[in-house]
Amino acid sequence: MGGGIALLLAENGVHVSLSDPSEETMDGIMQKAKKAGYNGLVEKYKDHKSLCRSLSKPRLLVFSLPHGNVGDKVLEGLMPYLDRGDIVLDCGNEHFTNTERRQEHCKGTGVRYIGSGVSGGYQAARAGPSICPGGDESALKDVMPLLEKIAAKDEDGNPCVGVIGRGGAGHYVKMVHNGIEHGMMSAICEAWGIMRKMGMGYEDVGKVLQKWNDSGELKGTFLISIGADLSHKRYPGTDGSTKGQPLVISEVLDKVVQDVTGEEGTGIWSNTEAIERHVPAITLNAAHAFRLASAYRGDRIKANELTRGGFAPQELEIDNKNAFIEKLRRATYLACLASYIQGMQVIARADQEHEWHINYANIWKIWRGGCIIQADYISDKILKPILLKPSLSPADMHLLFHQHVAEEVLKSYPSLRRIVSKAVETDQVAPTLSASLEYFKMVTGTDLPTSFYEAELDYFGAHMFDKKGEEDTDGPTEGRHHFEWKPVQTQRQVYGASSKV
Amino acid sequence: MGGGIALLLAENGVHVSLSDPSEETMDGIMQKAKKAGYNGLVEKYKDHKSLCRSLSKPRLLVFSLPHGNVGDKVLEGLMPYLDRGDIVLDCGNEHFTNTERRQEHCKGTGVRYIGSGVSGGYQAARAGPSICPGGDESALKDVMPLLEKIAAKDEDGNPCVGVIGRGGAGHYVKMVHNGIEHGMMSAICEAWGIMRKMGMGYEDVGKVLQKWNDSGELKGTFLISIGADLSHKRYPGTDGSTKGQPLVISEVLDKVVQDVTGEEGTGIWSNTEAIERHVPAITLNAAHAFRLASAYRGDRIKANELTRGGFAPQELEIDNKNAFIEKLRRATYLACLASYIQGMQVIARADQEHEWHINYANIWKIWRGGCIIQADYISDKILKPILLKPSLSPADMHLLFHQHVAEEVLKSYPSLRRIVSKAVETDQVAPTLSASLEYFKMVTGTDLPTSFYEAELDYFGAHMFDKKGEEDTDGPTEGRHHFEWKPVQTQRQVYGASSKV
Repeated sequence: MGGGIALLLAENGVHVSLSDPSEETMDGIMQKAKKAGYNGLVEKYKDHKSLCRSLSKPRLLVFSLPHGNVGDKVLEGLMPYLDRGDIVLDCGNEHFTNTERRQEHCKGTGVRYIGSGVSGGYQAARAGPSICPGGDESALKDVMPLLEKIAAKDEDGNPCVGVIGRGGAGHYVKMVHNGIEHGMMSAICEAWGIMRKMGMGYEDVGKVLQKWNDSGELKGTFLISIGADLSHKRYPGTDGSTKGQPLVISEVLDKVVQDVTGEEGTGIWSNTEAIERHVPAITLNAAHAFRLASAYRGDRIKANELTRGGFAPQELEIDNKNAFIEKLRRATYLACLASYIQGMQVIARADQEHEWHINYANIWKIWRGGCIIQADYISDKILKPILLKPSLSPADMHLLFHQHVAEEVLKSYPSLRRIVSKAVETDQVAPTLSASLEYFKMVTGTDLPTSFYEAELDYFGAHMFDKKGEEDTDGPTEGRHHFEWKPVQTQRQVYGASSKV
Repeated sequence: MGGGIALLLAENGVHVSLSDPSEETMDGIMQKAKKAGYNGLVEKYKDHKSLCRSLSKPRLLVFSLPHGNVGDKVLEGLMPYLDRGDIVLDCGNEHFTNTERRQEHCKGTGVRYIGSGVSGGYQAARAGPSICPGGDESALKDVMPLLEKIAAKDEDGNPCVGVIGRGGAGHYVKMVHNGIEHGMMSAICEAWGIMRKMGMGYEDVGKVLQKWNDSGELKGTFLISIGADLSHKRYPGTDGSTKGQPLVISEVLDKVVQDVTGEEGTGIWSNTEAIERHVPAITLNAAHAFRLASAYRGDRIKANELTRGGFAPQELEIDNKNAFIEKLRRATYLACLASYIQGMQVIARADQEHEWHINYANIWKIWRGGCIIQADYISDKILKPILLKPSLSPADMHLLFHQHVAEEVLKSYPSLRRIVSKAVETDQVAPTLSASLEYFKMVTGTDLPTSFYEAELDYFGAHMFDKKGEEDTDGPTEGRHHFEWKPVQTQRQVYGASSKV
């Protein structure tokens, strides 16, 4: 990402001083800058001192680093050469607690630290990403004009950037963005798998995805649009022509390893955060588990052998293919919507806890374009009427608490149920679609079987329960009743006087 | 729990000195001790000094405290009055990192700190719990005779206690025990809900659960047995008789709040740990999300209204009820088995990372009786042949890597599929059963739709992929190929020279 951002800045006439442990990486970026005609705008520097000297004050230092303690070390190395008023713009996928630790570290030095999520991947880093900054207010004010220049633009030409809030809020919101992204991507790949098992060729599936992207509830969904595009890509042959060459997608193995290799932390954190904030983010959880299971391909092969082929998806024989695909579209949409609902709830809960004063209208703005979860229909029809309200309450952030969202769920739920039902019957692997179906049932149900669960907890643990029909028992508060389901027995009563005790 | 353990110790002739901020609590325990005839064995003490003076050396201090920093404060308060060789036996549901912090704190003082999970609930605390201690080796050696006395006994009369391993291993294994417990309890309540929707009365369901507990794959499953028992319990009327009185279960509300109120941490931690250890613990995750959704009853009511009654489970019309219930039994069993498989994998991964040298044979011993996840069939048929092996490799801890476990899954999978299929069709809430079905598909599949996911990641993020048929691509390692699915474009190319840029 760092190289792309450097070139993007140069394209905007900004002098960029590079610093990277790899000389090769820096030379590559400089070569690209030269080729693009940004002569003299990109230079490389060997050490912190020369790097900092090369920058005009107040300096803007853009970090694009792996998450963890690398940023601490780099910051420590730079600190002797920084002055009051300098700005660090941390554009990595950093854990918000690391961001806040560094912000704390900077306090008193006068250096201003911004934690900024950057979304869109390596392509968008070059062309203009979606930018999600939070932290020092004065620094944000200073950098915003530049960020607005380099940010992606939405269809109205507005930059997809805005101040998110205090502290680590920028990185937090970007982390949740990635959680939503994973939920959506899982659902889409499950739909893709189902279409493949309907006997559709890779390119046929691509054409369907293109239609989904063109209109309706999945309109303008980045992950659908690139899915459509990639379905037609072929390797170039020796003559450079792709004619008769294999489709690239046909050769890609089914391993998603980024969580396991540690390359990406956001998938893990968005899920642990959901759990720690008490959000029933079952769609995100299932998507994450699916990534993990996929990563351990060796384990799957072993378990597949021991189960004599496992439970492989059967070929799907569908009478009315078009009608089924329409249901599949709606099912995919609801899983994407569930991902958004769960993600927004995680953000809102964290905001309340950390007092970040998140600007939700800016989340809407940032997610309008350039980012991986861009979904025009969801942006326009679901989020806009909520996030742009002049005043927002925490309850507003439970998207399902809005009538227009409830209507969307009602409209497409039967399709989701039909798809999951068919998937279950025929062993299609559809954890995210399944989880989304369960999600809508469990968060709207008022007579869940968990009453039996609660009775069991009270039986062995005296956990207390509330009673049906009592007033004010709707909050997540401890129950008021215990029933002595079974008299407590002493050791002697249980094991007898003659036991080995 | 603390009171129960105090009485249990007294029953075994141990002099117990109580210390609790609540005078009332202590008086209650002393009264019970008096009533039980343990005269003079239980005394209360007002402060740390008098408490420590009352104990013979080496002192044994048993903690039964809420998780968090309470233990640190109590330890700090006690420390001035402790001597080298004294033992702290922390029996709370403590987070293992808190345990290890205190163990570290004790180093050098000569005080020996044991982190010990205790399972079985308040009833078992009195009659004999399952005990899962880890930490200081010499201290464990010293307390083991006492723990063996007070522990639950399995059907062969062997105590359900054993040294688990170093550091916080005892509390860690207990934490995972609770994760497994929640997976099982969710699955059982979902099965209960399905039977209720078949038109069965509470007591009819109880009778079925009794049968399940008597033989077959769910034989001797504590959570099934108490479920059977509680199904028949009625409130006593004014005359003390239960005749004609309502069943207690019929009045219990569907809220499980322990995670949200902070009363219990283990459900949260076992899930975040699974995620951080990269275990696709989708059954446990779904069960946890279900608890969370259930806790926010007020939210459910609101969402239920907005969705005009939500997606309430339909009445189930089943032709052959007995055959369906048999499938339900097998489905419930597979969800319990999935919980065990996922939990054991979490333990094994953590053990490797923390080098706790976990004694897996002792896990088997500890889970044989007295604990909430006691499941005789799973203990005998699944775990025993693995955990009692003279030498164990980390791969052994993936239970599905054993032929006899794979056979169990193969045998009951069609039942699980049938139940989930029916549940989906008729809107039964069954997140844990659903997740377990998806689990077995995803961890045994060798051609997952995640190849499309991987292609998308490479498209926008240059995440690299492996190719089908290549050698050595089965590990969770970064892929070796990138395809330039779309040429990188500059900002000007994307937005045009005349854009607002």
